[in-house]
Amino acid sequence: MKKLTLTLLLLFVTLLGFGQNHNHAFGRKINFPNVEGYVTLKADLHIHTVFSDGSVWPDIRVQEAIRDGLDVISLTEHLEYQPHSADIPHPNRNRSYELAVRLARNSNLMIVRGSEITRSMPPGHSNAIFIEDANPMLKEEAMEAFQEAKNQNAFVFWNHPTWTGQEKDGIAKLYDLHRDLISKGLLHGIEVVNMDTYSEEALKIALDNNLTIMGTSDVHGLIDWDYETQHGGHRPITLVFSKERSIESLQEGLTAGRTVVWYNNLLVGKEENMNLLLDASLKVEKVEYPGNTSIAHVTIKNLSDTEFELRNLTDFSFYDMADLVKIKPQSETVIKVKTKDILSDFDLEFEVMNAVIAPKAHAKLTLHVARTDN
Amino acid sequence: MKKLTLTLLLLFVTLLGFGQNHNHAFGRKINFPNVEGYVTLKADLHIHTVFSDGSVWPDIRVQEAIRDGLDVISLTEHLEYQPHSADIPHPNRNRSYELAVRLARNSNLMIVRGSEITRSMPPGHSNAIFIEDANPMLKEEAMEAFQEAKNQNAFVFWNHPTWTGQEKDGIAKLYDLHRDLISKGLLHGIEVVNMDTYSEEALKIALDNNLTIMGTSDVHGLIDWDYETQHGGHRPITLVFSKERSIESLQEGLTAGRTVVWYNNLLVGKEENMNLLLDASLKVEKVEYPGNTSIAHVTIKNLSDTEFELRNLTDFSFYDMADLVKIKPQSETVIKVKTKDILSDFDLEFEVMNAVIAPKAHAKLTLHVARTDN
Amino acid sequence: MKKLTLTLLLLFVTLLGFGQNHNHAFGRKINFPNVEGYVTLKADLHIHTVFSDGSVWPDIRVQEAIRDGLDVISLTEHLEYQPHSADIPHPNRNRSYELAVRLARNSNLMIVRGSEITRSMPPGHSNAIFIEDANPMLKEEAMEAFQEAKNQNAFVFWNHPTWTGQEKDGIAKLYDLHRDLISKGLLHGIEVVNMDTYSEEALKIALDNNLTIMGTSDVHGLIDWDYETQHGGHRPITLVFSKERSIESLQEGLTAGRTVVWYNNLLVGKEENMNLLLDASLKVEKVEYPGNTSIAHVTIKNLSDTEFELRNLTDFSFYDMADLVKIKPQSETVIKVKTKDILSDFDLEFEVMNAVIAPKAHAKLTLHVARTDN
Amino acid sequence: MKKLTLTLLLLFVTLLGFGQNHNHAFGRKINFPNVEGYVTLKADLHIHTVFSDGSVWPDIRVQEAIRDGLDVISLTEHLEYQPHSADIPHPNRNRSYELAVRLARNSNLMIVRGSEITRSMPPGHSNAIFIEDANPMLKEEAMEAFQEAKNQNAFVFWNHPTWTGQEKDGIAKLYDLHRDLISKGLLHGIEVVNMDTYSEEALKIALDNNLTIMGTSDVHGLIDWDYETQHGGHRPITLVFSKERSIESLQEGLTAGRTVVWYNNLLVGKEENMNLLLDASLKVEKVEYPGNTSIAHVTIKNLSDTEFELRNLTDFSFYDMADLVKIKPQSETVIKVKTKDILSDFDLEFEVMNAVIAPKAHAKLTLHVARTDN
Repeated sequence: MKKLTLTLLLLFVTLLGFGQNHNHAFGRKINFPNVEGYVTLKADLHIHTVFSDGSVWPDIRVQEAIRDGLDVISLTEHLEYQPHSADIPHPNRNRSYELAVRLARNSNLMIVRGSEITRSMPPGHSNAIFIEDANPMLKEEAMEAFQEAKNQNAFVFWNHPTWTGQEKDGIAKLYDLHRDLISKGLLHGIEVVNMDTYSEEALKIALDNNLTIMGTSDVHGLIDWDYETQHGGHRPITLVFSKERSIESLQEGLTAGRTVVWYNNLLVGKEENMNLLLDASLKVEKVEYPGNTSIAHVTIKNLSDTEFELRNLTDFSFYDMADLVKIKPQSETVIKVKTKDILSDFDLEFEVMNAVIAPKAHAKLTLHVARTDN
Repeated sequence: MKKLTLTLLLLFVTLLGFGQNHNHAFGRKINFPNVEGYVTLKADLHIHTVFSDGSVWPDIRVQEAIRDGLDVISLTEHLEYQPHSADIPHPNRNRSYELAVRLARNSNLMIVRGSEITRSMPPGHSNAIFIEDANPMLKEEAMEAFQEAKNQNAFVFWNHPTWTGQEKDGIAKLYDLHRDLISKGLLHGIEVVNMDTYSEEALKIALDNNLTIMGTSDVHGLIDWDYETQHGGHRPITLVFSKERSIESLQEGLTAGRTVVWYNNLLVGKEENMNLLLDASLKVEKVEYPGNTSIAHVTIKNLSDTEFELRNLTDFSFYDMADLVKIKPQSETVIKVKTKDILSDFDLEFEVMNAVIAPKAHAKLTLHVARTDN
Repeated sequence: MKKLTLTLLLLFVTLLGFGQNHNHAFGRKINFPNVEGYVTLKADLHIHTVFSDGSVWPDIRVQEAIRDGLDVISLTEHLEYQPHSADIPHPNRNRSYELAVRLARNSNLMIVRGSEITRSMPPGHSNAIFIEDANPMLKEEAMEAFQEAKNQNAFVFWNHPTWTGQEKDGIAKLYDLHRDLISKGLLHGIEVVNMDTYSEEALKIALDNNLTIMGTSDVHGLIDWDYETQHGGHRPITLVFSKERSIESLQEGLTAGRTVVWYNNLLVGKEENMNLLLDASLKVEKVEYPGNTSIAHVTIKNLSDTEFELRNLTDFSFYDMADLVKIKPQSETVIKVKTKDILSDFDLEFEVMNAVIAPKAHAKLTLHVARTDN
Repeated sequence: MKKLTLTLLLLFVTLLGFGQNHNHAFGRKINFPNVEGYVTLKADLHIHTVFSDGSVWPDIRVQEAIRDGLDVISLTEHLEYQPHSADIPHPNRNRSYELAVRLARNSNLMIVRGSEITRSMPPGHSNAIFIEDANPMLKEEAMEAFQEAKNQNAFVFWNHPTWTGQEKDGIAKLYDLHRDLISKGLLHGIEVVNMDTYSEEALKIALDNNLTIMGTSDVHGLIDWDYETQHGGHRPITLVFSKERSIESLQEGLTAGRTVVWYNNLLVGKEENMNLLLDASLKVEKVEYPGNTSIAHVTIKNLSDTEFELRNLTDFSFYDMADLVKIKPQSETVIKVKTKDILSDFDLEFEVMNAVIAPKAHAKLTLHVARTDN
């Protein structure tokens, strides 16, 4: 009787007291390691505010980015689409950038000037970032806007080529106009991830045309609501491998195509970039044969915020798992490898199921394992 | 472009009751029961948007209110303080109201037209709500604005009299000007709770001058961030006991002073209103003497979202608690009363520690308890 | 004295379904659907109490099983290993079974009489269940014990062939003695999962020799501690596809080899049994082409407690996922399939990454999808 | 066989501090500070195992105590009540103690030898602890058992005087026999808290007769289940203020009556002991007048695992709270005191609502507050 009361009470307490999120190692802030030779910059380069069709003032965008632990954002207001113009008739297309720079002054957050060239398909929407002045970008002809972007030395990427507002089948298609833009050096990247979409066809276009692989939130409302951050969700971001932590290096890294996109638990990137990230994220910490056994206990540390899902490609079997191994974010996992004999060193080979390097193709990972207990 | 779709989607999701927050019994939505003779309207009547010094467009305010399960809000932009005027030069002080009305059209949320008369102390800041047109409220002299509010048949309440920006000691003080406003029928209420402050002195002013007790969020940023809704927090609200669910009844209820403020776990109100709420919130569900004992098991149901903290004022002792009893929100609690003999009925008397009816004074609650097991 | 009251109370609470763990759909209770033609019985058939080398009285085992929502357990005390004999000198090897039967009387939990034949390798340890009397099983020679089990019409399975206490390399090996047992019909199953181990080699032995695939907790301490049930963990169980919910049907199902083992998120079973479980667990609920698009929204319901990890084997791409799809337990997931044209029906084909049917081989799943919106 | 390994593993894990419960500051381990002049020992001195009517072997009791961070336990088996005697016919009433001592050898947990004298009321049940040999305690006459306890220099306390199995009204009553025991120095303490009960009348008996105030779990099943430790619950414990961390000092502290009981969120103790604990638990960390205000920000650190509920007894009002202040366990809380003028120092006085020092009487706490920002 009392037990029942207690149980009921505690049950309700629990239901009422739920909701804390322990999914990220340091609260909500996103963490990925630097990679060999580069700083890993966490970027969201497609964002809106009230200065085009978003619902918040730039201060909220700055605070969201700081809460998310981002290094850099760009407020890429639509040049041509200004639904708030009855209330915000500002002719200055740089305004949200200028406000954000001031608002981020006392933080480490970098703000990149950008604008969204908003056209019907083709070419659809594109973001020009690292521009010097958004106002002259507002042109009659799409091609002129791209040309102006080039004049300003911009990095330009194609937004949501998969958007059903412009492609009813949700399939990204490369039009002649795009081929033209690419050949003229007017288009440098493509969103493979936008908001809550992933496009295999956009990935193929990126690989076939050597475009930089991009992922962005394209947020209009609140990051917290769109991505349920309180339940461990996160916005899509682009990890850019940069020589330094600066806007110049960011542009160099983007232009050189050194990106990996993080979307839900998925990583998307070109093979060489993915390999850089995998090597930096998964470290063999310890290799021991405990007790009197010939079972190698291999401790692997995951320094990233994503959970890795590895499929065993060797002939070895594991002592407590089948061939699918999960490596939790920001923690250590022990893989118990039945090596039959005690080996001084050996290789573990995995298919990284959550790391996509081409349509339906996953990265491979080889971990060289050497005993640390003798 | 995607914004409208997004907004509609969010509205739809919210209306469908897909609460994403499990902190309250029914998600994040706030629940208090109707009281004897009245509908309990959940109101936040002091809110800002980008149309004065807030950080969001009115759509976010509408969505926040729907997520919180409120019945009514007022977007009370500062008449005189317009820090965004360089970007939003709108001369129409009704604009955020008009947008909100349109955005809330497909929901049950009611929007009240209001404005904040923003002056130095005295009289400090005041909200005039239920006005017909905000624009003529913008006057040179404060007194003229209050007079215009009266002409428009407004309900006017004094905002944050405790604000350290105007009172360095944080103590609400009634100035001659306030006495004048009150005697002329130009001031009808006072915020005892504003944002994250509670003022015992404001409560005394309310009681001494028969002003309506108000509690508001005065939100400028995001409700989710200011009140950590993901951890079970909530904005301060005013419960208004109204004859019907309508704006007219709301005004009648406010004018008649029928309010209780909910702030953190605290309830603040005049004794008669508090008693209405306590009677509606705490119900004796079941009274049994189980087994062969003379210990009455009294099941009390809490129909509200606040946790009640009751102090036993009778000579009875309890079988598993000392004199302090907690009644969890939206659940049942069994109090085991050692009545020595088996009684057919008896009274439980409590001091309600979290229900303030005057400075440092708590409501009393008597529950008449009659056996239900024979 | 208070123990009985306590036990009854806990039973009552548990039967009322007030689970304390919110990780599964119905609290801590494990749920898997019945499969075509069979009832799915959730069994843990390898358990210890103080009557051999366990740490709890049988009442705790009964309560743990009820909390876990199991259909059937067996308390398989070691016949030969009795470390508590100084305190519990009971010569009756049936004692924990007899106590458990009485303790489970008012619940739905079935208790199977069983004993662990505890020998050095070969043959190692084996459980004989469905026996009539454990006492005569205690023989000098291992083979005699197996023979006695057969005389009693037992189902016998080989325990933890992978245990490093008997195999230093953790690799299950079939000895001549095992071949002999199998050929004589004295050994019918093998643990592929025991406690926190999984054995690929045991799976191969099972398949090569047509032994029943078993998974058990082999618990000695507390289920809650060993499997962190409060964090959503669960003990390994064997799902047995039985004609009815009875001990006789359970034995028939085991003898016929109709089992799938659930261990962490992994399912292990023979292909035909796995297919039965997959078909019963994953249901196409709805297929719609929303808006004006040619993207099929396929709603898949997972009726099981395991999270399925599916790899897309078709040429279709998905609108918001790459080729790896996760189907959360006891919930619905929408897969957005880009079919280019609007199709009246089509097939989705998946590799089920968490369903192992042979060493390093996964089950395949074909879902036939037909439009429901026209 | 695997049990020892398992036990060692669990011990190891626990000693390493891998708490699995995040409700307390340091996992599930209970923390209270030492008090002025004394070490605070966390004790549960009323516990059962299979050696009387409990459901677990002593190893589980040792592990539970280590998980809970206790300093000392006593396995107080019923002398006269042996429901497991058909299976555990052991005539040695010291057996569970002896096993526990061995099992706790590699931990810091202290084990006290004890026995429960199990009689009808009066005198009801009593625990004799610090005895030398439980076997001679088994006497025909209750009084002889108490006399034997005295001969062995035991500390004896009256168990659950409120138990409805012996008092139908749940009210502790002092019988002549108890008065006799007390006057003869045969009874030294009384349980005010047992399992899930609190007795105001037992508290009065303790105070009137100078008996030591005791609180125990009297656990028969599992601590995790009875107290829902995974949801932040804890067993009742007695905090004993001892000169050293030793069994001898524990006995001296108990004999001298230096105890406070912790039960749910309630503390129960004699005024002088409660004051020691309050002084050690609540520390003024910082006192500042920020900005240009005359509002003192007083930072109070709670070094204990209980949440304090303080009622303001001064004329001061607070800037963001009414008169009820909650001080969360193991954390800092800022109280914003409106002192009108800037004061160099002042006193805060509180009624500690959750600290009971007599029936319906709470401890008082005075915190002297001196500015730290000048």
